Amino acid sequence: MSFRIALGPRERKSPFFDRTVAAGVTHFTIYNHMFMPVSYGDPEAEYRRLIEGVAMWDVAAQRQVEITGADAERLVRYLTPRDLKDCVVGKGRYVPLCDHRGRLINDPVLLRLADDRFWLSIADSDVLLWVRAVAAEGGFDVSVGEPDVSPLAIQGPMAEAVVENLLGNWVRVLKYFGFREATVDGIPLVVARSGWSKQGGFELYLRDGAKGGALWDRVKEAGAAYHIGPGAPNYVERVESGLLSYGADTLPDSDPFEVGLDKMIGLDREDDFIGKRALRRKVEEGPARRLVGVAFDGAPVAPNAHPWPARVDGACVGTVRAACYSPRRRGNIGLALLDARHDALGTGLTVEGPAETYRGAVVGLPLVPPGTPLPESG
Amino acid sequence: MSFRIALGPRERKSPFFDRTVAAGVTHFTIYNHMFMPVSYGDPEAEYRRLIEGVAMWDVAAQRQVEITGADAERLVRYLTPRDLKDCVVGKGRYVPLCDHRGRLINDPVLLRLADDRFWLSIADSDVLLWVRAVAAEGGFDVSVGEPDVSPLAIQGPMAEAVVENLLGNWVRVLKYFGFREATVDGIPLVVARSGWSKQGGFELYLRDGAKGGALWDRVKEAGAAYHIGPGAPNYVERVESGLLSYGADTLPDSDPFEVGLDKMIGLDREDDFIGKRALRRKVEEGPARRLVGVAFDGAPVAPNAHPWPARVDGACVGTVRAACYSPRRRGNIGLALLDARHDALGTGLTVEGPAETYRGAVVGLPLVPPGTPLPESG
Repeated sequence: MSFRIALGPRERKSPFFDRTVAAGVTHFTIYNHMFMPVSYGDPEAEYRRLIEGVAMWDVAAQRQVEITGADAERLVRYLTPRDLKDCVVGKGRYVPLCDHRGRLINDPVLLRLADDRFWLSIADSDVLLWVRAVAAEGGFDVSVGEPDVSPLAIQGPMAEAVVENLLGNWVRVLKYFGFREATVDGIPLVVARSGWSKQGGFELYLRDGAKGGALWDRVKEAGAAYHIGPGAPNYVERVESGLLSYGADTLPDSDPFEVGLDKMIGLDREDDFIGKRALRRKVEEGPARRLVGVAFDGAPVAPNAHPWPARVDGACVGTVRAACYSPRRRGNIGLALLDARHDALGTGLTVEGPAETYRGAVVGLPLVPPGTPLPESG
Repeated sequence: MSFRIALGPRERKSPFFDRTVAAGVTHFTIYNHMFMPVSYGDPEAEYRRLIEGVAMWDVAAQRQVEITGADAERLVRYLTPRDLKDCVVGKGRYVPLCDHRGRLINDPVLLRLADDRFWLSIADSDVLLWVRAVAAEGGFDVSVGEPDVSPLAIQGPMAEAVVENLLGNWVRVLKYFGFREATVDGIPLVVARSGWSKQGGFELYLRDGAKGGALWDRVKEAGAAYHIGPGAPNYVERVESGLLSYGADTLPDSDPFEVGLDKMIGLDREDDFIGKRALRRKVEEGPARRLVGVAFDGAPVAPNAHPWPARVDGACVGTVRAACYSPRRRGNIGLALLDARHDALGTGLTVEGPAETYRGAVVGLPLVPPGTPLPESG
């Protein structure tokens, strides 16, 4: 099955769009109402580049929701169950957002740019609408908007060398999720050590959409010696690493506990936050489902187009949300959302692909530990 | 430029997905986090079928936000600026939604299924999050959810005959936007005279996602004598007819006045609604932009992939949001969002396509009046 994507004015172009086309993008998705590259036609090369070298990703679709004003901090604390006691300027935090019933509605990274200025760097749902409604109905004195900010991710073990080449050796002192404002050739950036892989890297938050082409070219130039090439959030690597994909690994009523975000939920917080009561009740009851790793047999599978049913003793106990072949584990793997009664390590199950049924088991996360090299080829 | 769409588990499949694949779908978009067919590879045949015959469209991505409970009606009235004084069960209404600053955030059709039960049949934004936030923060006693409901549209001059064949001659008495609950072969439906074209037709709101294939087959069978075929919301017909496409024709800060929804805004309402103050201020100031029809010269253009700049005397005065060739007007047409100082009929402008610049003018809406036939071919 292979289909074309309809290009139309309803979706926005990234500031890097023309450069990704020139670089040979072959597959797009739509994310936050924006076209986002998914592949450049050679998945194996893109994976290898991320694991062994360095890749540049157009992730402009990771939009920012900016909250400013006198009540900005109070609103941010109300929006997330996470306890932000040490929320300082220059340090990002992963902040799951829940609704009033404790359902996960997004899992952004929070960047505090100033005492009264925050960005939520979001996954694929309209957090802008959510925050505007909460702010207005809750009477918070804030402005909420989407600034002209578009991240370009540089990921892989060579990413630090590339970013140092681009910006200077100060980038080496940035800790994970640390960020700083900077410019390169007059292009305004926020530079963060972050990104949606476990291979290390940075995100350059471009602050002027007119300069997307210029930034792309500068990064390509700075990475030439390291054979930088185009890529995109990598399906296989993120499953190997157990990185949560909101909307792929979650269902509309998923809560943070079932997807392993327990440590992000500040149930002991004294101040109020959205979903507090519901989340307390959920933690008492225990989750009905669990996101687990699975490994299964058979010839290498291509990344799944849709979730696959998972069965224990013939009964459907959930779905394999993401499935693929892992070159580093040398086997088929997946992330499955299973009935919590069947989440124990070693539980045997069958996985129903569209053409074949596989035999597998529940295994620990991450499916591939950080730092695992690619096997020698041949 | 032609790219493939990445199929993955983040987007949901429609209940009609497999049937649309079997019918030869070639192009998809993603709409409300769901794959939605856009073309079956023969745009001219799809257009002709809609204008002269009958087409069936998988529009499951037009999701429903269901509001039930004691405060359901009060919440619905608060959510939309439209005055709903005669909002009765069995009659749909077009209800623009605005945020507290008067920005348009969606333009659903409202269906009142019971005194305390409403559906918002939505365009492409997360109205579910918006309504949940407003309901919870505003203290409304309601439940807000997304039911298992997936519309299948039947559009074109032969649609009524097909739906009569499928359901009986009672469908003839349904007025525009009128709806009724019904079943066919045990498949539960809400049947409405509605749909996103000006060629007449119905939407069958399937109420059991497991029966998508069965419904598709029954409609195909009922339409065989009328040569029914697959289609999708039609780019050319909707531009000709001046149907608003939220997100395509609008910008993130667009208000209802600039896109011609003045009559939908109940500024004289005594009860409060979201955006009331902001909208009153906007109507006093007058809109800064206007959505207008444009006609322009040159060889027939393919539907635009991205908005095109529009210029008056060399200065950029806005963008042509949608552009295409109209077989019924025998010329190139578009919908443009222009600086309101340049919205007068007859205003000359240039339209900058990606390869060519065209000369055109502001013209009246609709660009093609309802009932206009296709010219004789050859």
